[in-house]
Amino acid sequence: MLLKPYLMIPGPTAVPERVLQAMHRPMINHRGPQYEEMFRRISEGLKRVFKTQSDVLTFPAAGTGALEAAIVNTLSPGDLVLSVSTGVFGDRFAEIAGRFGAQVEKLEFPWGEGAQPEALAERLARDSERAIKAILLTHNETSTGVTNNIQALVKAKGDHPALILVDAVSALAAINLEMDAWGLDVVVTGAQKALMLPPGLGFVAMNERAWEAHSRAKMPKFYWDAQAIKKSLGKGQNPYTPPVSLIFGLDEALKMIDEEGLENVFARHCLLRDALRAGLKAQGLKLLAGDEDASPAVTAVLAPEGMEGKAIQKMMRETYGITLAGGQKKLENKIIRIGHVGYVAATDVLVTLSILDMALTKLGLPIKLGASVKAAQEILMEG
Amino acid sequence: MLLKPYLMIPGPTAVPERVLQAMHRPMINHRGPQYEEMFRRISEGLKRVFKTQSDVLTFPAAGTGALEAAIVNTLSPGDLVLSVSTGVFGDRFAEIAGRFGAQVEKLEFPWGEGAQPEALAERLARDSERAIKAILLTHNETSTGVTNNIQALVKAKGDHPALILVDAVSALAAINLEMDAWGLDVVVTGAQKALMLPPGLGFVAMNERAWEAHSRAKMPKFYWDAQAIKKSLGKGQNPYTPPVSLIFGLDEALKMIDEEGLENVFARHCLLRDALRAGLKAQGLKLLAGDEDASPAVTAVLAPEGMEGKAIQKMMRETYGITLAGGQKKLENKIIRIGHVGYVAATDVLVTLSILDMALTKLGLPIKLGASVKAAQEILMEG
Repeated sequence: MLLKPYLMIPGPTAVPERVLQAMHRPMINHRGPQYEEMFRRISEGLKRVFKTQSDVLTFPAAGTGALEAAIVNTLSPGDLVLSVSTGVFGDRFAEIAGRFGAQVEKLEFPWGEGAQPEALAERLARDSERAIKAILLTHNETSTGVTNNIQALVKAKGDHPALILVDAVSALAAINLEMDAWGLDVVVTGAQKALMLPPGLGFVAMNERAWEAHSRAKMPKFYWDAQAIKKSLGKGQNPYTPPVSLIFGLDEALKMIDEEGLENVFARHCLLRDALRAGLKAQGLKLLAGDEDASPAVTAVLAPEGMEGKAIQKMMRETYGITLAGGQKKLENKIIRIGHVGYVAATDVLVTLSILDMALTKLGLPIKLGASVKAAQEILMEG
Repeated sequence: MLLKPYLMIPGPTAVPERVLQAMHRPMINHRGPQYEEMFRRISEGLKRVFKTQSDVLTFPAAGTGALEAAIVNTLSPGDLVLSVSTGVFGDRFAEIAGRFGAQVEKLEFPWGEGAQPEALAERLARDSERAIKAILLTHNETSTGVTNNIQALVKAKGDHPALILVDAVSALAAINLEMDAWGLDVVVTGAQKALMLPPGLGFVAMNERAWEAHSRAKMPKFYWDAQAIKKSLGKGQNPYTPPVSLIFGLDEALKMIDEEGLENVFARHCLLRDALRAGLKAQGLKLLAGDEDASPAVTAVLAPEGMEGKAIQKMMRETYGITLAGGQKKLENKIIRIGHVGYVAATDVLVTLSILDMALTKLGLPIKLGASVKAAQEILMEG
């Protein structure tokens, strides 16, 4: 049976036709005026999306590379780093810091829950010597479908001087984040989520406090050195050869975000999340995250009793062409994750729900056909 | 709100990414060996799709041009032609014949119903002098969503010597048609329906009886002259410059049909039609064609009492990004037509039904949300 693929994973996400078209252009000189004009425009666009006046640095890299850049540009071996972790990606941020010699202390929360600001405040209150140099936060924990309340966590920090480093890889441009207004020192994202690009670009924005830290930071770096990027940025360039096609695509994706309006993009992600969750609940499925912490970018659904998550993924993919993500680490095979970040429309949610109905029915679950779609339609019509 | 466009009209239909990619190649010499090799392969592929051993002639033209070619290559001014018409496209075929001086007699059937073989048999029985030179049939009447039973109509012809000319523009490669086995003399189709291409190519297959008729046909022709096409085809070429990009796309589309299997393509169209109709009926909507004549390519739905067809189309398109077709001529504003021909999957049917639910609700119709999707899911899971 002919299938039309739907890629409903939390990255890489569907790339709009417009962006693909923009990428399909001949190479240009990355040291010439045409590139410079485009890259300056992109840099301004990135600032709007990060909601910052600081420069946003572009690295040819995966999001994980940009996380590493955030660490090595602001910290020194031996620094005490408090890692607020709510899942796989919080753990990874901590692991990078540890690998470069930071002394990492973890403030962990159960997978499927958001970080509690009170717990952070309590830990920092005990740090009377102000030994903690940085706090690592995850805006959207992709492994559990939880969005952490960054604003509340920063408030909980109070006047503690630790830097705030935020992994916003799966969040930025999907979930509101106000780098300057909220006082975030470093914010990191990647291309392949809400920026609607293929993977291959990482972004790091650093405010003045972060640049001050950079001047003292002793972790070794060459490729990730923010100073080199910033210097080139002044000339509308990159220090090392950029992936020109992705830069073409980024220019177009930022135009699309501007046209839709960033606040409208956020509202869309919330509406689609609400519709999807209503549909899943109408089918009696259990969601890993509660409504309070529910991510506008990815939704984790517990595999029904006695059913393997991978069996659902396989049925969705092979029989109906819908690709979902599975669980990671201790959640492997226990959940399925539905990505709805970036170039996602109401029709994608309706397709996913109606096909999930069919897949679960085929796998023997008693499903009320149509119930999930009805619940989603009701939410979508209000939106 | 971000919309992803779904083009659910009976042509031009959605073009698969693979075909678009294939078309996106540099021009080649249409008189060179690379073109010849490709065009010979295409010609064999077209024969398989037409289910004929006769040559299939390719014209750079709209489907209507190919209908004209069918007429002018087989008929002479003054010839008596019996046009079996079940809608707009049956009428058009007749009009072309008339414009070139044929004496056209219409055998008309109510719009929304298939042609009755008995009526054809009865008319031919009265033609004791065998004056009727050709019978014009429409395989799939796109304006009403009716598929005529070509095999039964040909049987009804019995041993009457009239040529059978079949407009299969919206049917070929979607609905089974066996040119040789059923004894069809001329079969016509276009690129932009089940062949999954952008518009711009028309096809005419002529059997030996049709070529005999060609040798006597007096209607004036140059561009449409089948003899010129056939002569060039012997060299793997076209007499006049072909639209090379469309030919690249055709090569790829025929590969896709071969990979899926032509019989599977037919089965898919039937399954999707059945699912769509079940969903529409579950919502209490009235369908123009009965189950017996229902087209696997396009479904016409009566606009609910007091509602304009165009209002439904507008709501579907502007609010939800789904483009449907409207009614033509006397059905204008009275029906909406949902195209499901060519590159169409189960997900397209589910999207169309769930969005139609929402559009009709917004237009004030009491809709049982989820009911249409449930009915379609039940059919799709059996398929």
